[in-house]
Amino acid sequence: MVAINQNYLKLPGSYLFSEIARRVAAFSEANPEKNLIRLGIGDVTRPLPAAVTAAMHKAVDEMASMEGFHGYGPEQGYEFLRSAISQNDYQARGVNIQPDEIFVSDGAKSDCGNIGDIFGLDNIVAVCDPVYTVYVDTNAMAGRAGDYDAESGRWSKLVYMPCVQENGFTPAIPKEKVDIIYLCFPNNPTGAVATKAQLKAWVDYANAQDAVILYDSAYEAFITGPEIPHSIFEIAGARTCAIEFRSFSKTAGFTGTRCAYTVVPKQLSRGGTSLNSLWNRRQTTKFNGVPYVVQRGAEAVYTPEGKRQVRENVAYYLNNAKVIRDGLQAAGLNVSGGTDSPYVWARTPDGMPSWDFFDRLLNQVQVVTTPGAGFGPSGEGYIRFTAFGDAAATKEAVERVKSIL
Amino acid sequence: MVAINQNYLKLPGSYLFSEIARRVAAFSEANPEKNLIRLGIGDVTRPLPAAVTAAMHKAVDEMASMEGFHGYGPEQGYEFLRSAISQNDYQARGVNIQPDEIFVSDGAKSDCGNIGDIFGLDNIVAVCDPVYTVYVDTNAMAGRAGDYDAESGRWSKLVYMPCVQENGFTPAIPKEKVDIIYLCFPNNPTGAVATKAQLKAWVDYANAQDAVILYDSAYEAFITGPEIPHSIFEIAGARTCAIEFRSFSKTAGFTGTRCAYTVVPKQLSRGGTSLNSLWNRRQTTKFNGVPYVVQRGAEAVYTPEGKRQVRENVAYYLNNAKVIRDGLQAAGLNVSGGTDSPYVWARTPDGMPSWDFFDRLLNQVQVVTTPGAGFGPSGEGYIRFTAFGDAAATKEAVERVKSIL
Repeated sequence: MVAINQNYLKLPGSYLFSEIARRVAAFSEANPEKNLIRLGIGDVTRPLPAAVTAAMHKAVDEMASMEGFHGYGPEQGYEFLRSAISQNDYQARGVNIQPDEIFVSDGAKSDCGNIGDIFGLDNIVAVCDPVYTVYVDTNAMAGRAGDYDAESGRWSKLVYMPCVQENGFTPAIPKEKVDIIYLCFPNNPTGAVATKAQLKAWVDYANAQDAVILYDSAYEAFITGPEIPHSIFEIAGARTCAIEFRSFSKTAGFTGTRCAYTVVPKQLSRGGTSLNSLWNRRQTTKFNGVPYVVQRGAEAVYTPEGKRQVRENVAYYLNNAKVIRDGLQAAGLNVSGGTDSPYVWARTPDGMPSWDFFDRLLNQVQVVTTPGAGFGPSGEGYIRFTAFGDAAATKEAVERVKSIL
Repeated sequence: MVAINQNYLKLPGSYLFSEIARRVAAFSEANPEKNLIRLGIGDVTRPLPAAVTAAMHKAVDEMASMEGFHGYGPEQGYEFLRSAISQNDYQARGVNIQPDEIFVSDGAKSDCGNIGDIFGLDNIVAVCDPVYTVYVDTNAMAGRAGDYDAESGRWSKLVYMPCVQENGFTPAIPKEKVDIIYLCFPNNPTGAVATKAQLKAWVDYANAQDAVILYDSAYEAFITGPEIPHSIFEIAGARTCAIEFRSFSKTAGFTGTRCAYTVVPKQLSRGGTSLNSLWNRRQTTKFNGVPYVVQRGAEAVYTPEGKRQVRENVAYYLNNAKVIRDGLQAAGLNVSGGTDSPYVWARTPDGMPSWDFFDRLLNQVQVVTTPGAGFGPSGEGYIRFTAFGDAAATKEAVERVKSIL
């Protein structure tokens, strides 16, 4: 008799955003005349940049011809895209990442989950709290998280690093020995950023412990502060201890177009084995590359017009973030994030539980947010607003929220 | 210190097609003037059908506008595509597969590998021999294959089901108890098909043992015999024991466009747990859906023009298969496959080792094939030709091969 993966049975309830969708659908059904404004899920709303769609049209035409047709591409991504990434996202910032250290994929979500394949099951995993739930759930599925305790909202084997207002939303290096450390800056959900000095401490720790940092910088395009690092590889020593995840989703609006990449430096090895070669083996065996048409679209992000158009989109969203941040602050809420990030993270009024505040905003003023508790125990008492909406609707949403504070 | 997944270190050498690519590159470098004909890797060469590229252009235009833009889609695939698949690939053949039993993905290779996530690590896995290597390698990576013995070319914990000329390339039900059974019909690499009676025996076995059949029917579009089942779900009882993998790669030429799907029936449960819900959890947590543009392209495969264009492409490749099959047979080779499959499977002359025959074809007449031994121990003494090339080049290749037999 076949045995299922018992770890799946330990997973609590449904995925956060499914629960939000359920509550929103129930409200809409009961109140079909009410106009909802969605500042919940971190999904972009602006069209793809014109440079991207022009490149995709051209690539579709190629695929329609004998001469231009592309079948299986390299699992790691086409050289044209890996080179463009290497030059623009790394070399241009003085970071030496070569094309064969870059693995193009269908999404940072996939990569953050699948990366676990190359690690043993007994590693101790540290996560920020609150956290992007994919890191936790994928480790739970693999059996690295131990058992879930519903009361505390914690897994027995995970090491939680609280990120709360009291510590400036910056995780402290754990006292326990940990092997795999997930970091995400600009942070989802708190919108916090890390300085070079803060990241340097992590890199030194990881190198000293032979740990590995899994660094999610999917939101780096939103960084405005000139001193804030965009990549972990701007930190000396990171090439021997870190893997970085990047995405075109939040920069060029690829959430429905699906392209991302993961950087595994050649110098990164553990137990004498190159992690670059392990990830290469994983990807060549269990993945077959990103659509040619999509890779051509991603390449166009690095053209002069593409860069300009992406900057415009990011500026549009950052302006929304400022509107949310300033508006909530003016209304007396305690807010952070939103300056180098599309996320504004606010304390709930009077310490209200975050799901209660979520329900209140939904039911009273029809604004959809994400309750902080959904991101982990230390997210309780906070709520996340995203800046990815329409500018006018975002303004309207902020006015609505202010009206009930 | 982080521990790597030690199972990766057990994997022998490189992926079959990397080794072929290496030998071909070495030959080409030494003989740049020689004209190679590639009948090795199973990659299509005909352009995407016009109905598909028209739909993709339209979808790219949508993505360029505020109104038509699509961000995150459902991880399981858009309803429009799941419905088209349900109606055309199943209901039209009298098979009741509903849209919520269909999970759209980026490829059957990914799904065949990732499906292992939902099963425990102690299951006994049975594979055909020769076999599509992804089934073996992904189980080895997960730790289900035991240890590799280089001499026999076998993994200690896998159950091998030889498929050779003597048994009509049909696997016999193993004497050992097995939990997970990979079947692939039309078969890669042998080109063999299974009758309804043969599949019924497997379904009955799996139901009796509470085993699960992982059924790869990526090549079903090549079936010409009216009695040959296209889906395992044409067999009574399969809904309680089988998962099916399908792909747009070999039918509509999507090898570089990336779209496939996996069917997990609602009635399929083990240990009281629905495998449909487990796979749904896996996909929603570790995958973020297929590009909207690609899903619109796949949907167009089911329009009247799309169907006609796909049939034309398949007929083109099947004619190549006939040319290969007839030519090699006329030259005295013992061949099978190629009638309901794009693969022709031939015995090497005089029992020559398959890598030797591969080298001879490459070096003497510059025809690239795939050595049977690369697919498993029982593939030794065979060689695979694929019908996915240009018709004129395929004819020329067959003449070249005949000239040295």
